[in-house]
Amino acid sequence: MSTSAPSHNQLDTKAEAWSALFSEPMSDLVKRYTSSVFFDKRMWQADIQGSLAHAEMLSAQKIIGTDDFASIQKGMAQITSEIEAGSFEWKLDLEDVHLNIEARLTALVGDAGKRLHTGRSRNDQVATDVRLWLRGEIDLIEGLLKELQLSLVEVAAKNVDVILPGFTHLQVAQPVSFGHHMLAYVEMFKRDAERMLDVRKRVNVLPLGSAALAGTTYPLDRERVAKTLGMVNDQGEACVSQNSLDGVSDRDFAIEFTAAASLCMVHVSRLSEELIIWMSQNFGFIKIADRFTTGSSIMPQKKNPDVPELARGKTGRVVGHLMGLITLMKGQPLAYNKDNQEDKEPLFDTVDTLKDTLRIFAEMIGGQLNPATGTKEGGITVNAENMRAAALKGYATATDLADYLVKKGLPFRDAHETVAHAVKLATMKGVDLTELPLAELQAFNPNIEADVFEALSLEGSLNARNTLGGTAPAQVRIQLAKHQARLA
Amino acid sequence: MSTSAPSHNQLDTKAEAWSALFSEPMSDLVKRYTSSVFFDKRMWQADIQGSLAHAEMLSAQKIIGTDDFASIQKGMAQITSEIEAGSFEWKLDLEDVHLNIEARLTALVGDAGKRLHTGRSRNDQVATDVRLWLRGEIDLIEGLLKELQLSLVEVAAKNVDVILPGFTHLQVAQPVSFGHHMLAYVEMFKRDAERMLDVRKRVNVLPLGSAALAGTTYPLDRERVAKTLGMVNDQGEACVSQNSLDGVSDRDFAIEFTAAASLCMVHVSRLSEELIIWMSQNFGFIKIADRFTTGSSIMPQKKNPDVPELARGKTGRVVGHLMGLITLMKGQPLAYNKDNQEDKEPLFDTVDTLKDTLRIFAEMIGGQLNPATGTKEGGITVNAENMRAAALKGYATATDLADYLVKKGLPFRDAHETVAHAVKLATMKGVDLTELPLAELQAFNPNIEADVFEALSLEGSLNARNTLGGTAPAQVRIQLAKHQARLA
Amino acid sequence: MSTSAPSHNQLDTKAEAWSALFSEPMSDLVKRYTSSVFFDKRMWQADIQGSLAHAEMLSAQKIIGTDDFASIQKGMAQITSEIEAGSFEWKLDLEDVHLNIEARLTALVGDAGKRLHTGRSRNDQVATDVRLWLRGEIDLIEGLLKELQLSLVEVAAKNVDVILPGFTHLQVAQPVSFGHHMLAYVEMFKRDAERMLDVRKRVNVLPLGSAALAGTTYPLDRERVAKTLGMVNDQGEACVSQNSLDGVSDRDFAIEFTAAASLCMVHVSRLSEELIIWMSQNFGFIKIADRFTTGSSIMPQKKNPDVPELARGKTGRVVGHLMGLITLMKGQPLAYNKDNQEDKEPLFDTVDTLKDTLRIFAEMIGGQLNPATGTKEGGITVNAENMRAAALKGYATATDLADYLVKKGLPFRDAHETVAHAVKLATMKGVDLTELPLAELQAFNPNIEADVFEALSLEGSLNARNTLGGTAPAQVRIQLAKHQARLA
Amino acid sequence: MSTSAPSHNQLDTKAEAWSALFSEPMSDLVKRYTSSVFFDKRMWQADIQGSLAHAEMLSAQKIIGTDDFASIQKGMAQITSEIEAGSFEWKLDLEDVHLNIEARLTALVGDAGKRLHTGRSRNDQVATDVRLWLRGEIDLIEGLLKELQLSLVEVAAKNVDVILPGFTHLQVAQPVSFGHHMLAYVEMFKRDAERMLDVRKRVNVLPLGSAALAGTTYPLDRERVAKTLGMVNDQGEACVSQNSLDGVSDRDFAIEFTAAASLCMVHVSRLSEELIIWMSQNFGFIKIADRFTTGSSIMPQKKNPDVPELARGKTGRVVGHLMGLITLMKGQPLAYNKDNQEDKEPLFDTVDTLKDTLRIFAEMIGGQLNPATGTKEGGITVNAENMRAAALKGYATATDLADYLVKKGLPFRDAHETVAHAVKLATMKGVDLTELPLAELQAFNPNIEADVFEALSLEGSLNARNTLGGTAPAQVRIQLAKHQARLA
Repeated sequence: MSTSAPSHNQLDTKAEAWSALFSEPMSDLVKRYTSSVFFDKRMWQADIQGSLAHAEMLSAQKIIGTDDFASIQKGMAQITSEIEAGSFEWKLDLEDVHLNIEARLTALVGDAGKRLHTGRSRNDQVATDVRLWLRGEIDLIEGLLKELQLSLVEVAAKNVDVILPGFTHLQVAQPVSFGHHMLAYVEMFKRDAERMLDVRKRVNVLPLGSAALAGTTYPLDRERVAKTLGMVNDQGEACVSQNSLDGVSDRDFAIEFTAAASLCMVHVSRLSEELIIWMSQNFGFIKIADRFTTGSSIMPQKKNPDVPELARGKTGRVVGHLMGLITLMKGQPLAYNKDNQEDKEPLFDTVDTLKDTLRIFAEMIGGQLNPATGTKEGGITVNAENMRAAALKGYATATDLADYLVKKGLPFRDAHETVAHAVKLATMKGVDLTELPLAELQAFNPNIEADVFEALSLEGSLNARNTLGGTAPAQVRIQLAKHQARLA
Repeated sequence: MSTSAPSHNQLDTKAEAWSALFSEPMSDLVKRYTSSVFFDKRMWQADIQGSLAHAEMLSAQKIIGTDDFASIQKGMAQITSEIEAGSFEWKLDLEDVHLNIEARLTALVGDAGKRLHTGRSRNDQVATDVRLWLRGEIDLIEGLLKELQLSLVEVAAKNVDVILPGFTHLQVAQPVSFGHHMLAYVEMFKRDAERMLDVRKRVNVLPLGSAALAGTTYPLDRERVAKTLGMVNDQGEACVSQNSLDGVSDRDFAIEFTAAASLCMVHVSRLSEELIIWMSQNFGFIKIADRFTTGSSIMPQKKNPDVPELARGKTGRVVGHLMGLITLMKGQPLAYNKDNQEDKEPLFDTVDTLKDTLRIFAEMIGGQLNPATGTKEGGITVNAENMRAAALKGYATATDLADYLVKKGLPFRDAHETVAHAVKLATMKGVDLTELPLAELQAFNPNIEADVFEALSLEGSLNARNTLGGTAPAQVRIQLAKHQARLA
Repeated sequence: MSTSAPSHNQLDTKAEAWSALFSEPMSDLVKRYTSSVFFDKRMWQADIQGSLAHAEMLSAQKIIGTDDFASIQKGMAQITSEIEAGSFEWKLDLEDVHLNIEARLTALVGDAGKRLHTGRSRNDQVATDVRLWLRGEIDLIEGLLKELQLSLVEVAAKNVDVILPGFTHLQVAQPVSFGHHMLAYVEMFKRDAERMLDVRKRVNVLPLGSAALAGTTYPLDRERVAKTLGMVNDQGEACVSQNSLDGVSDRDFAIEFTAAASLCMVHVSRLSEELIIWMSQNFGFIKIADRFTTGSSIMPQKKNPDVPELARGKTGRVVGHLMGLITLMKGQPLAYNKDNQEDKEPLFDTVDTLKDTLRIFAEMIGGQLNPATGTKEGGITVNAENMRAAALKGYATATDLADYLVKKGLPFRDAHETVAHAVKLATMKGVDLTELPLAELQAFNPNIEADVFEALSLEGSLNARNTLGGTAPAQVRIQLAKHQARLA
Repeated sequence: MSTSAPSHNQLDTKAEAWSALFSEPMSDLVKRYTSSVFFDKRMWQADIQGSLAHAEMLSAQKIIGTDDFASIQKGMAQITSEIEAGSFEWKLDLEDVHLNIEARLTALVGDAGKRLHTGRSRNDQVATDVRLWLRGEIDLIEGLLKELQLSLVEVAAKNVDVILPGFTHLQVAQPVSFGHHMLAYVEMFKRDAERMLDVRKRVNVLPLGSAALAGTTYPLDRERVAKTLGMVNDQGEACVSQNSLDGVSDRDFAIEFTAAASLCMVHVSRLSEELIIWMSQNFGFIKIADRFTTGSSIMPQKKNPDVPELARGKTGRVVGHLMGLITLMKGQPLAYNKDNQEDKEPLFDTVDTLKDTLRIFAEMIGGQLNPATGTKEGGITVNAENMRAAALKGYATATDLADYLVKKGLPFRDAHETVAHAVKLATMKGVDLTELPLAELQAFNPNIEADVFEALSLEGSLNARNTLGGTAPAQVRIQLAKHQARLA
């Protein structure tokens, strides 16, 4: 059934016209407009991996000969070398990564190359490639999310007892541990990692075998291909798309991934916003290392937090890609439409942006390992004095006075009102609550005693919030231990 | 510690000024701008449910007295009756659902009401309410997604052997079973249901106990509250937010839900697009029942597919909400900011739009149960003749000819090229491939024999695609059985 | 040709079925899903205004009788009274504002009412109504944009000589006048007003006469209707849509308006971000009046800048509407499709949000008129001391030292490098540049003389930037005069 | 004051550290993350043009010497040659196009190069460059929009008398002229061109002279620079930004341009949707030339409308960029923040996508000039027979029967109802209204006479819509003449 004797290679003549059916070749403008090879060639490994799994199955099912499979293997090895060496010639005329590789394969191994496309179409091939490629990228992103969490955990561990003002509405609210604050971001990136795993389940499904749209007339063993490609669930069962029309037209996974990436970038934007505010001279809470800042072409004194600002800006970029992908899919009839080719650039750029951002943040926050000392250096520098000074503004422990009164028997709403009066007096006097003499405090409520000053101190306030999830250093240390165990 | 004796109700004086600290009341314009009660009151049940769980725990922890708890229960029962009866007076001055209910509670039960807010803040309260409310809505949406899948499965079951042209690029591609086509949408809505369950995991987490932002000074048992509210994972463990700053400021779940809803609406928009095209006179593939159409104020002959069109349009609405929520959260510093109040209206409208759309599509596709006959009536009407006629245009079985040649030993690429020539001849003659005499076909390849006409028939083409996920009726019936078992 | 004798009113029977052609009435669910009356009734004035202009022209063209027109006028006057009095009964069964009014008109005046729809369709009617309504709203928005600019100009005028640190990257950059800073926002809102006028040109075009999609068989005088409705350009020429298919399906104006509104909200979000940062205790640059703030349910000391935060959040809402509208229109074939009904709610909400926001910001910034004193009171309070103190941090005048050196003959790049060294020394010493002794400064460059300290002062720096658009008070006063003249 | 003697070039040492102030150089990862040179180098011409205008003014104002200006001119000429020849070495270390060119200039001409940056900052420089570049692109887009309109007008002119069914809701509505249908798109692209001109006004404003954020201490003549760069209004007055803070931070023009581009792409998407539907075998209304289609890797008979599909998909891309840019600017405090660097890639890609799409559509619709014949060839092919056959389905002239009855004295609503009954009868009989015998029609209304059949014919219906904007060929020819005159 199979011979590898050289024969006419139809893909070589694509430059002239698609097939016998076409009366004229594509214009150069149209080629440039419709070709994808210069961006989709980054999926070449997935394309070869998918083709080999397909060919192995075709051979096992006796749809092609074992010699054909051997030829394909040999040809693909050669192509891999060429691409890695940079000597592979990518041709615009061959539209995309798939036809470029298939054409080269046929040039190398003849008819076996022409038999590779048996029982598949570019529609299911590209869907398979994107999924394989994206699965690999998600695995890298999982690693980067873990590294970023580790950086945050390390900074948190060093700063459990550093107190800064917790803000709501950017107004001083209550004192919190800086370690606690860092762990809030660990929670966010932990959720991002969970979400990515949920997305991965739906990425890791094999469309190959859907062919153009209706399935194929060859006795394919799709589950074999899925297993070869590692597309299996936790129980080791092959994950194969169950409907050919859906298999070739489904881009849910790209949208879902980009939505998860957008959320992750929203978290990055929130952290960036805080870093930028904290670095502003009126806060002076932290510094980031000089290598993450730039100067000004005109103002000689400037050190600008370029990296967090750019990351905040890149949130828009990723969100834009999400909106672009949704707009792309809205209202498309089944099955495959060429619109779908536009899924790749936003997806690729989302992956690149997210990976770069996570990597750079992990280092900017936590520093980088000094192999000489075995410790990380060059992460953010915390200015505990400035944080403490800021926490002493704005009556951060007023709630503690209310809680103090509740413990003396007042209903909470009455206690709240009483403290508002006390704060009003302190504001008029330009002093902190702790600076009001006991007698003046007692005028608001006779049950106030000398122990109130302990409750009103920053440490007193902090230590009192000793319930699950609270900012008391004891609680923060419990959380730290959990995260360290989880990320170990 | 607790008495229910009546006392001054601070919330009653909110109209004058927030507290003793404020020198002037809110202007009416500001009240209207900042109040949420007229849209957030829909969460009243969640608010009362959460308050009762909180109070039960406060009592168990001896933070309030058991008599306080009893009073709160009694008061909440009264408030529930009032709201259900429509006699509860919602006040703009009291800003939101939370203060409205708390003020009324205090009016009803005195100091016990004032004690309810012990150890919590509106920041964690509203986050809890939204999560409880949304969890319930997700459960309803799961039910609606199942109903819609059932409708599609029923229509599919009746139309396994009905053949329509499968399209790619809206060009006739290959014949497919109409049942197979319907099942493609079942796959989409099945994924939507899975995604919703993934979202539900992250919704069903208790922030209560985070208080304003830093946790609380009272010895709360947060896991007890979580269990009371059913916020437990598959292992029955309480799901409690682990960081108070994150607990009050996290809106990931709202964005994630809206992203999942957007994807679901994208699927609805694709189905709508097809229904609209299929109903167009030049297709005439289906009809939808008159009650889902409207006429024209000027053109007496019109029956317009208003429901699918509107659903397609409403996709934009939901996608807009997603974009709005992401924009909202981008760049927000920790912890709670008032911006977050803007999370509710888009979330509420997303839920309403999605539920209405799913409900109406389930009935429009599958019809409604006639209790007299026990069968569903009034779903879409399929015009099998028009579908078949369309499938006979456009050389839908050309691929089958190529596959035929492959089975005769030609490499696929050569077979593809040969068929292109045959199609070109048929096009010039204005006939179908099956209408070319055998001799003419043999001129393209001498191995073609009389059995080619079976391969070129619609049924032959369909039956040949008998691999997993393919459109062969035998395969479609296997899929139908799986879906029926799953949805039973 | 016309009599007003009572006859069968077809619209009364809509509840049963759209017309004789329909075999069943709409289901209640479908009615709720497809009806628009409960949101589009806000356009009732535009609907009546458009109908009267249409009827006047029909009468002038002798398509209906003058007695018909008189009856229609009388009926519409009655309907206007009923709506204003709240006694008009809006019916869901009648779908929308148009059919509700037409049905009532026919009930009131008989056949004349039935003649009103001659030569028009709901497709061109609704397009006309939306345009008329939006034109009026744009005019209101122009007024509000002017008021907001006036408020900013007034605050600017009072604070020309108040110095705050200008930031780039939220790092202290150079001292600027607070008046200058306020005028930056005047420029933004001035552009918004210009953009709105550009949008208005394209809103103020008459689609009526396009009928359903193809124009009409009646000899309408569309330009007469346009002139009656004030749809004329600057030269007084009637503005009439030139293509009926485009006339009924064009929603560009809604998207364009929402895009302009989004940009305006982006400006509001930037101003809000600054107000929020400036109010944070570590800045303390300004206060906003208590009536624009709220307290906390738990923290007695809080005064939160709710209004700017909510406005920042509402930016997402408007941007979401823009995204929704674009998604809505993407890929719609000509001419009218029901999707378009979804244009109204986002447009209405955009208008409401923008108007409320502009109104509240004008008052929050500039205060409100005290009729007793004739002056505005209750706008933002500026803390010049805190601003000045902040400007003295961060080497805000380092650029001035570089410029000083350039004037002594150094190329700019060399001067920039020299100053970087000086700043490094001052940073190490923990002092400002002005606190370095002259001798130490001269060590960096021997041309530095005693007059350098004037150049390094905040006032010296400010006054030196005396070119068009610069922050020198003299320049700011020139700009102020221009704005005051423009806005007078 | 000026000498060009060689001296230390600070920009050469940027690789080591930004300035003396920085303790460590940027890491490579950070460089890659923050550098823009590999995308912003496309603005090199604008950068040089802006620098020359700035230098000319500095020289005229005697801020630099005339010999400095001469050196700068010479150096810039050299750099221009190098870039055009591809020999200019773009360095990542030098971050962006601005520093790359300035560093090379200083290498070439010494101190004169170091003086170029006097009185400006990269903040105002980049804002100027983007505006200059975008202004040029808008001018190109105006030209392309005109070409596309011309193509549509030419196709319209050839097809005034070709009748196709006008659709609303994709249901046959009324017959329309295909020329009329094409002109609907001319209206859309005409509006796009107008919008672009409105955007151009706000792009064509000079920020240079704003310096970093506060203006400059040098006596610049900003209006001179504006005039040199052609930044003047219709009255020839210089257009200069009036507030330095706004000058460096304003990105309205980028958002406004991208919004206008999005609307234009929405129009393209609508046209694409129609082309795709019209090419589907069940419509068969048109063909596009083979060079705008591609085949299938598996289905030999396919010719797919890739270009319109891809254009429809690219709508999402541009809309995504709009959303990205808005998200980018939301909530940014004044003045310049690094986030803004993210404005360029979406803007560049929007321009590229829009230009490519307009160019390819102009040719795909209208064909390309055959120099031999002087006529355009290879545009869309219209199948008038299929259009006419489709117009005869669906009772397209039912409205004409209603209008006929109105002219006989019936109120419109009664006529509408009467025709609904007639359509119902015809539907039951499976015939067109024109196929009902006169007697049967008279049974619905006795005033119907034999001339009704003329009114019910496609041509009768078309010709009757002879009012401004209507589809009557006479009207279409009037519109054609207007467009031809306008576009000549």
